[in-house]
Formats: sequence, structure tokens, C-alpha cells
Amino acid sequence: MAKSKFEYVRQFETDDTCLRNCYIVVRLDGRNFHKFSEKHNFAKPNDNRALGLMTRSAQSVMEELEDVVIAYGQSDEFSFVFKRTSTWFKRRASKLMTHVASQFSSSYVFYWKEYFAEQPLLYPPGFDGRVVLYPSNRNLRDYLSWRQADCHVNNLYNTSFWTLIQKGGLTTIQAEERLKGTLAADKNEILFSDFDINYNNEPMLLRKGTTLIWEKVRPNEAVTKMVKLPNAEEQKEITVTRSRKRVCPHHCDIIGDQFWEEHPDILERDDC
Amino acid sequence: MAKSKFEYVRQFETDDTCLRNCYIVVRLDGRNFHKFSEKHNFAKPNDNRALGLMTRSAQSVMEELEDVVIAYGQSDEFSFVFKRTSTWFKRRASKLMTHVASQFSSSYVFYWKEYFAEQPLLYPPGFDGRVVLYPSNRNLRDYLSWRQADCHVNNLYNTSFWTLIQKGGLTTIQAEERLKGTLAADKNEILFSDFDINYNNEPMLLRKGTTLIWEKVRPNEAVTKMVKLPNAEEQKEITVTRSRKRVCPHHCDIIGDQFWEEHPDILERDDC
Amino acid sequence: MAKSKFEYVRQFETDDTCLRNCYIVVRLDGRNFHKFSEKHNFAKPNDNRALGLMTRSAQSVMEELEDVVIAYGQSDEFSFVFKRTSTWFKRRASKLMTHVASQFSSSYVFYWKEYFAEQPLLYPPGFDGRVVLYPSNRNLRDYLSWRQADCHVNNLYNTSFWTLIQKGGLTTIQAEERLKGTLAADKNEILFSDFDINYNNEPMLLRKGTTLIWEKVRPNEAVTKMVKLPNAEEQKEITVTRSRKRVCPHHCDIIGDQFWEEHPDILERDDC
Amino acid sequence: MAKSKFEYVRQFETDDTCLRNCYIVVRLDGRNFHKFSEKHNFAKPNDNRALGLMTRSAQSVMEELEDVVIAYGQSDEFSFVFKRTSTWFKRRASKLMTHVASQFSSSYVFYWKEYFAEQPLLYPPGFDGRVVLYPSNRNLRDYLSWRQADCHVNNLYNTSFWTLIQKGGLTTIQAEERLKGTLAADKNEILFSDFDINYNNEPMLLRKGTTLIWEKVRPNEAVTKMVKLPNAEEQKEITVTRSRKRVCPHHCDIIGDQFWEEHPDILERDDC
Repeated sequence: MAKSKFEYVRQFETDDTCLRNCYIVVRLDGRNFHKFSEKHNFAKPNDNRALGLMTRSAQSVMEELEDVVIAYGQSDEFSFVFKRTSTWFKRRASKLMTHVASQFSSSYVFYWKEYFAEQPLLYPPGFDGRVVLYPSNRNLRDYLSWRQADCHVNNLYNTSFWTLIQKGGLTTIQAEERLKGTLAADKNEILFSDFDINYNNEPMLLRKGTTLIWEKVRPNEAVTKMVKLPNAEEQKEITVTRSRKRVCPHHCDIIGDQFWEEHPDILERDDC
Repeated sequence: MAKSKFEYVRQFETDDTCLRNCYIVVRLDGRNFHKFSEKHNFAKPNDNRALGLMTRSAQSVMEELEDVVIAYGQSDEFSFVFKRTSTWFKRRASKLMTHVASQFSSSYVFYWKEYFAEQPLLYPPGFDGRVVLYPSNRNLRDYLSWRQADCHVNNLYNTSFWTLIQKGGLTTIQAEERLKGTLAADKNEILFSDFDINYNNEPMLLRKGTTLIWEKVRPNEAVTKMVKLPNAEEQKEITVTRSRKRVCPHHCDIIGDQFWEEHPDILERDDC
Repeated sequence: MAKSKFEYVRQFETDDTCLRNCYIVVRLDGRNFHKFSEKHNFAKPNDNRALGLMTRSAQSVMEELEDVVIAYGQSDEFSFVFKRTSTWFKRRASKLMTHVASQFSSSYVFYWKEYFAEQPLLYPPGFDGRVVLYPSNRNLRDYLSWRQADCHVNNLYNTSFWTLIQKGGLTTIQAEERLKGTLAADKNEILFSDFDINYNNEPMLLRKGTTLIWEKVRPNEAVTKMVKLPNAEEQKEITVTRSRKRVCPHHCDIIGDQFWEEHPDILERDDC
Repeated sequence: MAKSKFEYVRQFETDDTCLRNCYIVVRLDGRNFHKFSEKHNFAKPNDNRALGLMTRSAQSVMEELEDVVIAYGQSDEFSFVFKRTSTWFKRRASKLMTHVASQFSSSYVFYWKEYFAEQPLLYPPGFDGRVVLYPSNRNLRDYLSWRQADCHVNNLYNTSFWTLIQKGGLTTIQAEERLKGTLAADKNEILFSDFDINYNNEPMLLRKGTTLIWEKVRPNEAVTKMVKLPNAEEQKEITVTRSRKRVCPHHCDIIGDQFWEEHPDILERDDC
């Protein structure tokens, strides 16, 4: 067969193994989601259905890839953090990021109806991704803090912007003009003085984004498993008791220490 | 805002620009499609619905990414070839492969019903991907020849294997045993002598896989476009005549020269 | 021994294999050669001893690494081109560039005395390097043309600058001022009108730099070799006739086609 | 000038920035040093002149590159560790490794005479290099432990091997045979019982290799410096007092904790 003659082309593949002992972060971003959200009538400034679907898709990724120890999402982006010692796909960057992008995207379409019952999906959406490595717990936490700080900045802006339009009757151009050069304190003041909105009472989901982690579900559950016995052709049904884990969402601050002190198992030690 | 304090983490991102003047190939492979095909009752050895859906999803990718000049698929894999001079996503490997993986996966779920009407999709499927660069037309053609030769080898085996089972009444173990060590000629002979099947009369789709290329659709079509005029806030509707291109499937040999002579525009010159 | 316990650290090494079927260019540049040339009293604008030593060191590299098919040098830089199909050091970029940098640097000190007899070497010089891949003959020739064009631009400037100082009696600041904004034609005119120098009669070495290629030395020479015979412990002396190759310098134009037509064996075909 | 037309070739250069917050290790190995040591009559099993020259060359590298916080050498290899936060050459791997390889090689030839007075250098030697990143102090220490353990294993073997030949009168083949399959304890026993050599009394230099670190030299020294004053064309001589640092060799164990506790400034904290 002519196979061997062409097989040399495999040598053109390159090795993109991620450096050991580093956290591997895969971040996905929606492609052209400005247009996508308009075509699908997303509520402004936030659409709870869309945020719910993002979270559901991220859960699907984590359930497929147990080495993801934490994921964080806001708006049309989601970051997945593989544990330092993960050997999934032999740590090959291309495999990790394409699998995450693929699983997330197929889940987004698959679960669409559960969140957008009456609103049909008009075309298949796209997400692009990247891989970034972080060598220390500090670096990783700073990465997640960066994303959560970004969530806050954007949400405060968007809340102010759309309140000026929806409640204040401004045009988009006028609202842009009104907010130009304002600091966080100014926006808080506009919301409070003009619209009687205390931004700190806005939902945590919107101000803090969504953090997904694995949590143990108690009491331990009895699980029935098929196992292949040694020296046997047939499988046998056995019952094992194991502590079940589940992906759970949080909408809390992850910049400060409290979250990390309450969940000491997420990060591995630096001195390994 | 604390934004600036954390922003240093962006410096951990790496540049993965693909070498210029090389073809960029992104190949996707189904994850655990053995199990996926069983759960969804794929016909053996080939399921035309599944092959049709793969092709539909690949078309969706090409329509999103016009710099893909040719795509080739068989079984649960599809390869996409970006032209040498492409500057999509600034040639960043991670962006290219995740976008292809994402668009393909969301399309696979989106178009599922068109191909599997009565068979519900039970869970969101996954595909993983990789990027490979080829510096010359010869290398690229050899890559595609490698995949098509692989298609042939696998399909001849699978056709023989399932014929022995479905028409010959063998068990899977007996069929494996029967084919062990056989060459292509032997398998052709088994099919012909025992089952009166001339393998060369099997459908081209199965023996050659699916090649997607852009083809001009004539006559030129008048297209209505919204354009934003300079120095104007509103858009205006204008009518332009353009030669329309469409992604068209072929099920022919792409190892020999004929296909390439008939479509001289797919490849760019080597001496550039 | 504790060896095994630590050996895991080898897994942190990464694979940096150069893409196949591409020319591999290693370019070296002198580190702080402005200071080095002053400390060692290099003649201005060009020091023939220094250029000779650069070329001698580059020859030493080529004699060690036969897969270098052409090298080009000017001023304090030298580029080495490995043939497309080279498998030296398994095409590992780090090995190739460090070996070139090392061999060049040790040769530079080793041969110093042959070129700078009366001028002692005051401290060990440094060169840094990089690797660049070129997929086509056109790209590679354009790379070499880029370096030779750079040689021309710099040499015309330096010749004008130092002539204004050495023959025209200007200070460095005055000379800089005089040349600011001048084009090539202007500099040629200054040299010709004010100093009766026809730049085109300047030595080719200075205007074109140095190109090193392998050339056959005829007549074929009888070479005495020690060979280890199969099934024997001792070595035996045998005489073989082979066509000897030698690294030869040229100081000609390599931007146009003539040089490449006269030496058709340097480049491999693109369509492989 | 045609410069611009060719300049596009610069786009083929790739970015090889080392991941932030990781130690950057450059390891050099002698090329064909088996032959080199024979041609230059190195003493067996160890040549103190050769080891001294290696250390001198490594010092030269560290004095050029102050961000190297520790270097470790044995036999014909030397490893250089750049501090985590180093920004030398913008952390570009190619620049770092070629500069180290170049500086080491030119120094080796430059200082040859100081160590091999009567023995002329016959040809310029070569070293090749590589870059490896380590994210944590533990990983880095394990890397250095790996090299020192390697030093021990090799030196015990070589000491036993050459003692059997030089004092025991065995041929090389007999000595190889005698040591086949022996453990460390066996080799210690051979040396002690047959030759009255207590391996633990062998010089630390040979058993532990050479570790180079920066150490403060007291008392602080007054240094005369030329400085360029602001708003002035001339330079002025001023006298400053500074704590001087010097590269100092150690021949001690670096696997255990003692060395690191005595020199707490070499490593940076992990939790940054």
C-alpha cells in the first residue's frame, strides 16, 4: 500500500507539551458575540439565560476533564485551570485547548433549549481559545483576579450605560458621552443619585461572575460499576462506595484570601 | 480599580505565530467516537448520515474561514488547509485550531437533526485538533495523499470485516482472525470470491472520502448589500454583481495529478 | 544512587525541532563590537584584519558542519544556511545555534594572532545568535539579499562618513550633520566631487561582503584513511580517491541571478 | 535602495521568550571532548588543568551576565542558572543560550595558556547548549542535585576504572569487565581493599564538582567611576563606595539543605 510513501509527513508535527509543574489555563472567548447577542435578543446589560448557558457548557467541560480544578467565567468568556500535575493529553497544548473549545461549543448548542426555550438558535456560534501557563499559585490567583476585576469594571460600566438609556432615556451616544472619563466612584454615584440603585446590591452573579469548583457530595453514595475481572471474559457487576464529587457554581469574590482559605484543596503547594 | 496590579499576567502568554509561506493544516479527530457511534446506532461499516453531518460541519467551517482552500475528511476526522499566505488571526496557531474545533463542534450539534432525524443526540460530542505546517506543495499533497490512503486502507478493512460478519455470519473474533495478515489483494479476493462484491464498485464517498473546495457559481449573481457611506450616519442599500463562490464536495482521487490539474487555483506556487 | 529520584527534571526539556523542508539560517552578531573595535584599534571605516578573522572563523564553522551550504558575512555578523534536508543534531534549533556560536567564538580567539599579529586580544569577545527558517528558495535568497543590501547601505554611509572626517577634516558631529537625509546618489556624489573617489571602485570585499560556499578541488586527490575492518580489532590503512571539497570565499553580488546560475548546486529544488 | 523589498524576511523570525517566573537554565556540553582530551593529553581520570579552565570560563560568563545566580560544572559540562525575574535579552531563549555558549567558548581559548602552559591548543573546541525552565525552587534544586549525583556516579566509576588500569595493571577491556554490574558500594570496596584508597578522601573538587556563586567582598571598596553629568559634554571622575561582589567557587554538597541555608539569597521565593 502507498501508505508508507506518504507517512513521512507526520514528521512535520511539532511537540507542544506544556512545561511541567505549571498551571495550564485555557481561556475561551465568544467570536463576534456582539452580533450573536443582538441576533438572539439578549437582554441588556446582562442576559441571565446566556450566562446560565455559558455556565452549563463550562460544567460539561469540567465533567469531561476532571483535571480542571477551577473555572471562572463572565460575559462571553470562560477560563479553565488544569492542575499543575495534570498529565491529560500528555500536557499537549493543542489537544487541551481544542478539546475544551470543542466540548464547550457542542455543549452550548446542545443545552441551548434548556435556557432559551422560546428563542431558536439561528446559527452555530464560535469560540476561540488560548493556553497560558502559570508557574506559581500567586501568578494563577492574579490571573483569576485579573479576570474578576475585568468583570467588575465591565459590569459597572454596562450597568451604568444601560440604566442611562433604559431608565434615563438617553441615546447610546449620549450615554457614552455621560460616562466618558468617569471613575468607578462616579458611576456608583450616578446610579445611586439619579436612579436610586445601590450597585453593591446588584446580583453577585453579575458583579462577581461565576466560579466553578469540584465539591464533595455527602453522604457517600453507593455506585454500581461493571468491572472486568482478571482471567475472565465476562464482566461482573459490583457495588462500591465512593465520595462523589460535583461541579458547583459560586458567585463570590475570588480576589481576596477568604475563598481560597475555605477551599484549600484547589491549589497545590508551590514548593513541589 | 485594581486592574493594573494584576495585568502583568498577560505577559505569560506566548506567541505561536505559524511560520510564513507554509500551508497551515488543522486536523480534527472525533473523541471516543467508537463509543459515540455505538450509542447513536451508526450503521456499520459506514453510516451515510454521520458522513453527511461531518461534511456539513466542515462546510460550515469553510464558510466562516474563507482562507481554507481545501478540506479533506473521512471517518471521524477532517483536515482543513489554510492557504500559504493567509493572515487570519495573524497566523496564530492557537486561535486557528480552536476556532476550527469550536465551529465544527457547534455545527455538528446544530445540524444533527438534518441528518439524524429520528435519532436524538444523547450528549455533546468532542473533537480534538492539531496544527501542522507544510512548506511545499509536494509536502501538502503528500499529507492529503496520506489521509486518503488511510481512508482506503481502513475502508477496505472495515468493508471486509463487516461483510464477513453481516453476510458471512462470523463473530467479530472470527472476522478479525480471518483478516489477520491479509494484504489489500487478499481482502479484495475475499469480497469478490465469497460475497460477489467488487470493491471497486463500492461508493466513491466511502473509498475516497470527501474533498471540499471553493467553486465559482455561474452566472454571476446580483447581491444586495447594506453599505455605510462615508460621512453619513445611515446605511444605504446597493446592488453589486459578483462572482459567487460555494463550497463543493468531491469524492475523487486526490493522490494523482488529475484533480490538481483540473483545479489549478487551489495551490499557490512554490517559488514565492 | 539517588540518581533516579532527580531524573524527572529531564522532562522539563522541550523539543525545538526545526520544521522539515525549510532552510535553517543561524545568524551571529558581535556583542558590543563598537567597544570591542575601539579597544582593539580597528581601522575605520573597515578593518581588513577583522574582516579576515570573521571569514576564517566562519570557514571553521563550515568545516565542522558540512550541511552548511552557504554562509554570508559583513561587518560583525555572519549567517550560516543549513540545507533544507539537513538532519544535523536532529534539526534541534538550540543545538544548531549554540554549536555555531561556540565554534565561531572559539575560532575567533584561536585564529586572532594570524590576523592581528601585533595587536593583543584584550578580552574574550561574545557573539549572540538566532535561528530563522525559510520555506522556499525565493525566501532564502531574499534573506541573503536583505543582508547584502544592508552591507551596501552601511558601507556607503561609513565610507562617506569617515572620508569626510579623515580627508575632509570634519568632526564626527559635522560629518553626521552633512550626511543627514542624503540618499545613496548624494553620498556617491560627495565622494566623487569632493574626494575624487568612485565608490564603485571600492573593494568588492567591502561593498559586497563575503560569501562562503563549498567548491570542488580538482584533480581528485588520493586520501589515506584508517578504517576499522569488520571482524577485526585492528585498523588498516587504505587509500581512496575522492573529489575534495573546500570552503571558498566570494565577494560578488548575490542579489541577482548570475551567482545562483553559476552555482546551481547550492539550493535544493522547491518542489520536493 | 532595495532594502524594503527584502525586509519582509524578518517576519519569519519567531518569538522564543522564556516563560516568566521560571528559572532559566543554560547547560553547555563539550562536543567530542573524548577526542579533544586525548589530543591534548588530559590526565586520567581527571585533569585539574582542564577543570580549572572550565571554571575560569564559567566565571567569565557570570561576570558578563550578572543575572546568573549560580552555576554548576563537572567534567566537560557547565550549567548556568538565571534568576527567575531576569529580563536579560528580554528572556529570549536563543539570545541567552548563544551568548552563554559564545562567551564560554571564547574564554576557553583565551584562558587556555593560563592552565595548559606547555600544552598548545591544537584546534578550537566546540560546546553545545540547551535551555530548560524550572518553575519552582524544588525543581531547580532537583536539577542541580541531578547533575551533582551524575558527577558522583561518573567520578566513582572513572576513579575505579583508571585505578584498575594505572595501579592494577589491567587493560581497559579487563577493567570494564571487572566493573560491569558493580554498585557504588562494590566500587568503594575495590578501591579500599585492593588499592588502599578511601574514596571519601578523594578531593572534593572531583567528587562534588564546582559550584559558582556571587559573594560579597568586604570591606566595601572605594571605586572610581567616570560619569557623564547631565547637561554636560564632558565626563567627570567621581568616587563611590559600593559593596563589591565576586564569583566564588565551592566544592561542596549542594543536594542537602546546608548549602542553601548558608546562602539564602541565591533562590527567590516560590510564592511570588
